Amino acid sequence: MQVPAGNLLEKINNPSDLKQFSEDELEQVCQELRQYIIDVVSVNGGHFAASLGVVELTVALHYIMNTPYDQLVWDVGHQAYGHKILTGRRDVFHTNRVYKGISGFPKRGESEYDTFGVGHSSTSISAALGMAVASHYKGETDRQHVAVIGDGAMTAGLAFEALNHAGIENSNLLVILNDNNMSIDPNVGALKEYLTDITTSKPYNRFRDDVASVLSKLSSVGPDAFKLAKKLEKSIKGTLLKKSNFFEALKFRYFGPIDGHDVKHLAKVLRDLRDIPGPKLLHCVTVKGKGYALAEKDQTKWHAPGLFDKITGEIKKTYYEKPQPPKYQDVFGHTIIELAEQNPKIMGITPAMPSGCSLNLMMKAMPERAFDVGIAEQHAVTFSAGLATQGLTPFCNIYSSFMQRAFDQVVHDVAIQKLNVVFCLDRAGIAGADGPTHHGAYDLAYMRCIPNMIVSAPMNEEELRNLMYTAQQENMGPFTIRYPRGNGVMVDWQRPMKAIPVGKGRLVTEGDDVAILTIGTIGNEAAKAINELNTEGYYPAHYDLRFVKPLDESLLHSVFQKFDKVITVEDGCLEGGMGSAVLEFMADNGYSAKVKRLGMPDAVIEHGEQPELWAECGYDAAAIATQVRLMGIKKDTTHTIAS
Amino acid sequence: MQVPAGNLLEKINNPSDLKQFSEDELEQVCQELRQYIIDVVSVNGGHFAASLGVVELTVALHYIMNTPYDQLVWDVGHQAYGHKILTGRRDVFHTNRVYKGISGFPKRGESEYDTFGVGHSSTSISAALGMAVASHYKGETDRQHVAVIGDGAMTAGLAFEALNHAGIENSNLLVILNDNNMSIDPNVGALKEYLTDITTSKPYNRFRDDVASVLSKLSSVGPDAFKLAKKLEKSIKGTLLKKSNFFEALKFRYFGPIDGHDVKHLAKVLRDLRDIPGPKLLHCVTVKGKGYALAEKDQTKWHAPGLFDKITGEIKKTYYEKPQPPKYQDVFGHTIIELAEQNPKIMGITPAMPSGCSLNLMMKAMPERAFDVGIAEQHAVTFSAGLATQGLTPFCNIYSSFMQRAFDQVVHDVAIQKLNVVFCLDRAGIAGADGPTHHGAYDLAYMRCIPNMIVSAPMNEEELRNLMYTAQQENMGPFTIRYPRGNGVMVDWQRPMKAIPVGKGRLVTEGDDVAILTIGTIGNEAAKAINELNTEGYYPAHYDLRFVKPLDESLLHSVFQKFDKVITVEDGCLEGGMGSAVLEFMADNGYSAKVKRLGMPDAVIEHGEQPELWAECGYDAAAIATQVRLMGIKKDTTHTIAS
Repeated sequence: MQVPAGNLLEKINNPSDLKQFSEDELEQVCQELRQYIIDVVSVNGGHFAASLGVVELTVALHYIMNTPYDQLVWDVGHQAYGHKILTGRRDVFHTNRVYKGISGFPKRGESEYDTFGVGHSSTSISAALGMAVASHYKGETDRQHVAVIGDGAMTAGLAFEALNHAGIENSNLLVILNDNNMSIDPNVGALKEYLTDITTSKPYNRFRDDVASVLSKLSSVGPDAFKLAKKLEKSIKGTLLKKSNFFEALKFRYFGPIDGHDVKHLAKVLRDLRDIPGPKLLHCVTVKGKGYALAEKDQTKWHAPGLFDKITGEIKKTYYEKPQPPKYQDVFGHTIIELAEQNPKIMGITPAMPSGCSLNLMMKAMPERAFDVGIAEQHAVTFSAGLATQGLTPFCNIYSSFMQRAFDQVVHDVAIQKLNVVFCLDRAGIAGADGPTHHGAYDLAYMRCIPNMIVSAPMNEEELRNLMYTAQQENMGPFTIRYPRGNGVMVDWQRPMKAIPVGKGRLVTEGDDVAILTIGTIGNEAAKAINELNTEGYYPAHYDLRFVKPLDESLLHSVFQKFDKVITVEDGCLEGGMGSAVLEFMADNGYSAKVKRLGMPDAVIEHGEQPELWAECGYDAAAIATQVRLMGIKKDTTHTIAS
Repeated sequence: MQVPAGNLLEKINNPSDLKQFSEDELEQVCQELRQYIIDVVSVNGGHFAASLGVVELTVALHYIMNTPYDQLVWDVGHQAYGHKILTGRRDVFHTNRVYKGISGFPKRGESEYDTFGVGHSSTSISAALGMAVASHYKGETDRQHVAVIGDGAMTAGLAFEALNHAGIENSNLLVILNDNNMSIDPNVGALKEYLTDITTSKPYNRFRDDVASVLSKLSSVGPDAFKLAKKLEKSIKGTLLKKSNFFEALKFRYFGPIDGHDVKHLAKVLRDLRDIPGPKLLHCVTVKGKGYALAEKDQTKWHAPGLFDKITGEIKKTYYEKPQPPKYQDVFGHTIIELAEQNPKIMGITPAMPSGCSLNLMMKAMPERAFDVGIAEQHAVTFSAGLATQGLTPFCNIYSSFMQRAFDQVVHDVAIQKLNVVFCLDRAGIAGADGPTHHGAYDLAYMRCIPNMIVSAPMNEEELRNLMYTAQQENMGPFTIRYPRGNGVMVDWQRPMKAIPVGKGRLVTEGDDVAILTIGTIGNEAAKAINELNTEGYYPAHYDLRFVKPLDESLLHSVFQKFDKVITVEDGCLEGGMGSAVLEFMADNGYSAKVKRLGMPDAVIEHGEQPELWAECGYDAAAIATQVRLMGIKKDTTHTIAS
């Protein structure tokens, strides 16, 4: 994508070019930057509304701060497109989130301006504080460190822990609270209401001015009034004003709220703040989607809308002749309602992903039984544990990679106490364009080692429904169901549900000489491979384990009695995953088959489409087929299998 | 331990007995309860100062609240001894923390009054909110839910996430902030300073009265003053008072601060609060160790002092004729200083465990380079990552089971970015009397699956020092060293350090027919077993892997070329642990030895001394010897081993 000639943006290859412009020209830079984001994202896809909301902030920060010497940490990073474009990546921005292209998030390896890799929420204050303390230690007293964090991200415990520490460190930290009332969905919680109070009632600073002015006027009324006024002033200054603000209670100097779309005023304020040492917070009010009317109006929809016509705003949908299989997310969303209608014990919990995981359907249908608790995975799990102590059955839906943030709570608050909490791990396995921070790579390994935990994964929509049905039965204890982002494989998925015996796998395809063991939806790649292989004369058997814990020992005994060549396939890490569970079973039972484990290698897997990355990691249908050809024995294509 | 006859405490078998006493008698109950705790803990050991600090609160809560219908959640649970004694466990209290005795923490299986199992900090608000929301859903509007949480625990992100959610739920939740300025060590952070401000400056509620009184007096001064006063009043009421308090900003009704040792006043306040619906917080000021002068004076020392003479306060030390090996904690504490003196890049970080992990030594010796960041494991890790981006080498020391709380930060902020952070996982393996919440059971499994992560464990003090030396070298990337609670095995441990090649194990004892592979200090149990076995004619070889990741492949090749019977031993979970890593190596390299894995079974391991639990789990010296006898071939005791 080319910037039209003659534009200012064309001249900006890095922030020092930006600094050449006058303050009056900044508005035009903002306008061009915003348009460039619209132009590129509309045809390439990606996150959208967040970056539009911080165009002015991004320009003002790079205009005033001495980046990259001054260090800028973007929380989550959905909003950093403008930052990328201004810091040398304008001309590769169209490769954003594409396989082998630039990352959708700030990434240290990509640019010296990307001081910290992000993706998960609420890390910015901790990271920037680390940088600030390091600068302080090195005597770099002129260096500024800025964390830009949304009001949604501010609800996560990590952000609070960082504020609590930063408040007592005398280092150069500026936290910019990008207050737009949104996470991906509307932000929730008490802090959000508090921030709304500040910004919608009389501006905080003006109130302070008022108090000062009233006090000074009272002084002139007479000696009695003067005395009382002094007393009051002392009280207010000494006791109240000092802690009259949430952030000031945490020892931050608080500034704002200010309009985050007035770039010249932002520049002025940042210039002042740059020279104030110690921890300080600038409360900046912005509109997510700013400058694109449709996005301003429906911010959740336009968080990451896919491709769209930038003039009409029509979101491009692929046309299908036939009905398509649903997303696993929608299967979850509809099924939990169906179950909850039958079982009054079921509750739904999501940490800030109602539209992402489709719990929004239940929140709408039965609002008293479905909770968005904010960006707060830890709390989501322990809150679920609390519900479960009262005989309820919470379904706590968390993205697999975000569940890493609540690992302790799963062990400590749910599993040790054997409470009936159902964990639905969405986005398990390769997540796609969001890349390494979002792949649900480790869940089978980190869930499998927890006592009392059932760990399952469905191969298709019907199985997901049956596992959900199974999990909500009485006294099941902690129950994990992991499933991937994206579409399933069944058009006719809304079938009656039935219970699956816990720890029971199933034979998918009979075969001989090689057995393929799969867990979860990646089993469909194995099925594809087998279709292909059968035409060549290879007849591997295919078993869907369904449960990684407990393992189906009777199925495995029969497999290892029949086969001495086994391939395991999982959309997850090889270290400690399903394949390792099978090896453990073998060792414990004295089997010695040749086992080839396919899954994510011990490496950081970058971004790309799921099939691209399955191929790269060597466990798509083609790779599975290759492995069978290596291990199996080719037969006549009319071969029949003895069962 | 018998309660002296004629005492009130003797008559209390459960809270309904307590309710029979008059309010005037409560002080005597408190006195007796306090004395009983002193009597028992002084001869049986356990946590001490925390429970003394909440004697009055405990008595008042059970006196006023309708427990167990009203639900009480004790955060962490160090302070719940009084609660246990009043709720049917007085006569078994002397078995506290003893193998097969009652748990040192509240535990659901132990009593209906223990509504939630605790151990790790800051879970109480989330759990109690879950209970409260469940009651609300069930229409139990008369039910109260109380979380008692210390000011230290309040700094953890989980507590904040819970407050943020609770503030918008209209359920019956009472948070009691037990403000004693302490974690195990003195509490740190901005919130602590804020709470100190509130409690040491003019009491908050009195200030509000003052404002009202001044305003009313101003009204009588004259019309001008009256007008101004009204304006000010409106401003203060409308804008300031509403959010003049940290907790009120989070939509809690705030009450206090009150004296937490005035049991009659506490009873009165709790009676009032019991009938106020919605989220509310009572700020209670207490003294940790209250009533035992020495404990009040040195609260860290008396957090869990061991056995002591209750009259003189002399802490009982075992007398040793010869010098004893040091604690691994002290080895860490002294060695990090030694290294930091040579390497200016080294920084030390602990989340609220300076005395527990011995980082307090470095905090004293080089305060600008060692940080206690509060109970905030997540922040400790991401803050360390921030330091590492600036070329520093943080040693982040976290108890193994607490590191579960920062798993995501290890993956996302350190490992994916391959930053030089050294994780020292203290209390790895069986932790002892603290029980299931504190065993460091899962770290080998959950660390091993992370890309870029080096995972090591020393067999003794010298190895710990060498691993620390190795880890601080340039560009090592993320480096984990896990070691247990308690004493090592070397008197002469302070030897010169040297680097160990990453991923290099070592042969400890030559042998034939069976190979024992160990990781970490449990290797000393194997060594003991071998000493015994040699006298019987068994000659197993012993290899100390040192690294679970990367594995010493060349060592393993030689092992599997030489041995077809292998025993793996680890002080950690069997699912996905070191033994599984060895099985993965075998599968990947086509070896088929018979492998017996010893380690923690897939179960919740209760409390007890380390040797008791190693025996129970089947991997102490005796169990290892038994396994060798099963697999090995008995020879003449003069047998020599061909190497």
